[in-house]
Amino acid sequence: MAERVVVIGGDAAGMSAASMAKRLRGELEVIAFERGEHTSYSMCGIPYWVAGDVADWPALVARTPEEHRRNGIDVRLGSEVTAIDPAAGTALVRTLRGTETVGWDHLVIGTGAEPIRPDWPGLDADGVFEVQRIPDGVALLAAVAAGAKRAVVIGAGYIGIEMAEALVRRGLQVAVLDRGPQPMGTLDPDMGAHVRAAMEGVGIEVRTGIEVEGIETFAGRATGVATDHGTLPADVVICGLGVRPAVALAREAGLMIGEAGGIRTDDRQLVAGDHPAQGRIWAGGDCVEVHDRIADRFTTVALGTHANRQGRVIGTNLAGREARFAGVIGTAVSKLCSLEIGRTGLGERAAAGAGFDAVTATIESTTRAGYMPDAGPIHVKLIAERGTGRLLGGQIVGHNDGAAKRIDVVATAVWTGLSVGELAEVDLSYAPPFSPLWDPVTVAARATHDAAQRSQ
Amino acid sequence: MAERVVVIGGDAAGMSAASMAKRLRGELEVIAFERGEHTSYSMCGIPYWVAGDVADWPALVARTPEEHRRNGIDVRLGSEVTAIDPAAGTALVRTLRGTETVGWDHLVIGTGAEPIRPDWPGLDADGVFEVQRIPDGVALLAAVAAGAKRAVVIGAGYIGIEMAEALVRRGLQVAVLDRGPQPMGTLDPDMGAHVRAAMEGVGIEVRTGIEVEGIETFAGRATGVATDHGTLPADVVICGLGVRPAVALAREAGLMIGEAGGIRTDDRQLVAGDHPAQGRIWAGGDCVEVHDRIADRFTTVALGTHANRQGRVIGTNLAGREARFAGVIGTAVSKLCSLEIGRTGLGERAAAGAGFDAVTATIESTTRAGYMPDAGPIHVKLIAERGTGRLLGGQIVGHNDGAAKRIDVVATAVWTGLSVGELAEVDLSYAPPFSPLWDPVTVAARATHDAAQRSQ
Repeated sequence: MAERVVVIGGDAAGMSAASMAKRLRGELEVIAFERGEHTSYSMCGIPYWVAGDVADWPALVARTPEEHRRNGIDVRLGSEVTAIDPAAGTALVRTLRGTETVGWDHLVIGTGAEPIRPDWPGLDADGVFEVQRIPDGVALLAAVAAGAKRAVVIGAGYIGIEMAEALVRRGLQVAVLDRGPQPMGTLDPDMGAHVRAAMEGVGIEVRTGIEVEGIETFAGRATGVATDHGTLPADVVICGLGVRPAVALAREAGLMIGEAGGIRTDDRQLVAGDHPAQGRIWAGGDCVEVHDRIADRFTTVALGTHANRQGRVIGTNLAGREARFAGVIGTAVSKLCSLEIGRTGLGERAAAGAGFDAVTATIESTTRAGYMPDAGPIHVKLIAERGTGRLLGGQIVGHNDGAAKRIDVVATAVWTGLSVGELAEVDLSYAPPFSPLWDPVTVAARATHDAAQRSQ
Repeated sequence: MAERVVVIGGDAAGMSAASMAKRLRGELEVIAFERGEHTSYSMCGIPYWVAGDVADWPALVARTPEEHRRNGIDVRLGSEVTAIDPAAGTALVRTLRGTETVGWDHLVIGTGAEPIRPDWPGLDADGVFEVQRIPDGVALLAAVAAGAKRAVVIGAGYIGIEMAEALVRRGLQVAVLDRGPQPMGTLDPDMGAHVRAAMEGVGIEVRTGIEVEGIETFAGRATGVATDHGTLPADVVICGLGVRPAVALAREAGLMIGEAGGIRTDDRQLVAGDHPAQGRIWAGGDCVEVHDRIADRFTTVALGTHANRQGRVIGTNLAGREARFAGVIGTAVSKLCSLEIGRTGLGERAAAGAGFDAVTATIESTTRAGYMPDAGPIHVKLIAERGTGRLLGGQIVGHNDGAAKRIDVVATAVWTGLSVGELAEVDLSYAPPFSPLWDPVTVAARATHDAAQRSQ
């Protein structure tokens, strides 16, 4: 009889594991349990749908349940796995029709992440939204259509900033709150200051260093956000505090949860630890910890790219081949209207926390030759190890298409262990519509090289 | 007495050598002889000035003679060096006022490149233009203003394509001729085909596999281009056949000219060979050969970035510090209206010529998530060594801002010697406005990795 793979979670990690396994080894029986009604959708696309760039949510679905089924995957929607028993090799599955026990030869855990929800009064009121799943977007757009005028976004990270842009473009008056010193806490504050300026430039009220105390409500509806600096009135409240690994199922089953709060796996995505188990248990996506190659520690990063990569690794291993996940360096891009934001590797504080004696340099340049009509300002900050000049990370904020994607050059250099001196030598491309004579990355690498040398 | 540095040529290599030397060692006497009237201008910007993106040519001048003089460099315009005597350590300089002999302690040769001019009848006629110097652009714009209607561009390389776009945007009817199979001979023909399609899409007539026989003239003015496939009528003819190192002065002085036709230097930019010499002779910019790191041979690449890098190396060495030029891999970007074009490293033919057993893969993707409104098609081709998977080169053509600059990621990977399998693992950035979930470079790296493995 064919081996059976049970997959928990019908999104990026789970379904890419299922797809890859089935593609490489068609005789596998693959059953995927998804508690919702959708598979393989782009959570990252939700802000652009809310903004109106994307006409409707079906465009965000990369592969429907029907498409997966045509590929031979037994997708079961509305099916929540409520418990797993590693020793017995079984999962308890609840549906509207009742509960059943399903045995596995291989288990793939792709339970994803759950929004961080502080213990604030009023957070369950009508008019408070998260931006995690397709129904969240449906409900938010309904509130906008019903005439919401004022929005407060709690949390100035990626999702908070993207939602702020979306709601500004929908005509709402938007305030964004964050307890940190600047928006975009994944950037150093000096770079976050540019994001703040751009937010204020498009009319977003930015309130940092502020503590939320709860949601004010009237008749069960949100009316404002109470803070230690007074109340901000709101018709809709977006809770954009980020996510954490959804590990309840794994924890209850005795699987290993690491210090970063995710399921701990090895680099084949096999769940680590000494749990007794029938068959093998794999995990991937937002529910696991990943190895940060630069800090050499485990961390959690909720990102579709990692989830899909890990799913492919699991699927390849399930098919009897060998694959390993190479770890992360924390590359990310985002935008706020015409401001593009990129980051990779370690920021200043993370570099110090990881034990590096770091130097930085920040340069300002233009995205194109200064004499070209669309040349916009761009700031590039690089972080390097003092002495060796080893590149540890980089941050870019700039106006105009092509500013932020330059972070991929920095990411490739961080990934391969280049020094800033070596990066400054790389033969990068130049033409007036694309870059000044010296690409801003080259200029920043040169400045950081000088800083790393001077301080020896 | 201060050592004297004599610089021949007031553009990228010469003036960056002069500037760096003066900045690091202010007591040097630096004299720069320029036969024209301008210093440090962007030749690459001329097509954008002709197109109207740049209002007037002074915007293309990075540093004027006056600015250089304020930095302590003795710039002499209208001064042509007609001979050098390495053994005596002297240069013969001709100006309108006569001829003088100038001695040096160090000589810097930055004579640049000269347009390739075949032995065609009529090439000196009125209405035939090159795009090398500022007066070329002034004359061409005057011809356009005087009512030129039809343009023929000879040569479908970077400059030919950029000039074709410029003239289309000025309202002319434009034909581009090339003897090769497709436009953009620095791309493989399969990728050049996309450039052809884009050119035809904006109304440019593209004639490839065609031999020019000469310029037809009437009363000293160009009236058409005679080819082996008949005559194409033209009011203006752009000769965009590329350039070659301007080495007459060096050759006559007995300096070493390499097999690629440029002045041969070591990696400090000291002119190679056993010529008798007073002091030291340096050379940089379009007049020298450069080391191709991948093919491990000498080649010529006329590009402002290399010229400036080499100038900085010369200036640093002149100041008594140590600097070396790390070589090139042939990275370049260009555009044709909304089509962006990037290349780096070796193409298929060059890889074979350099002795590599190469495999390739080409993928089509989109510049952004497929559901985003501005997602444009992008084609990425990578060339890798069979077996090892070592990345040898890459080519990108795609619509939308951000397509071509991705070549810098490929360039960084080529530069550092990554394999395509390793490149496929790199943590590149993703967000819907910037990339599909898998960046096209990642997809191409994966496909090329598979090809390199399959064919073992």
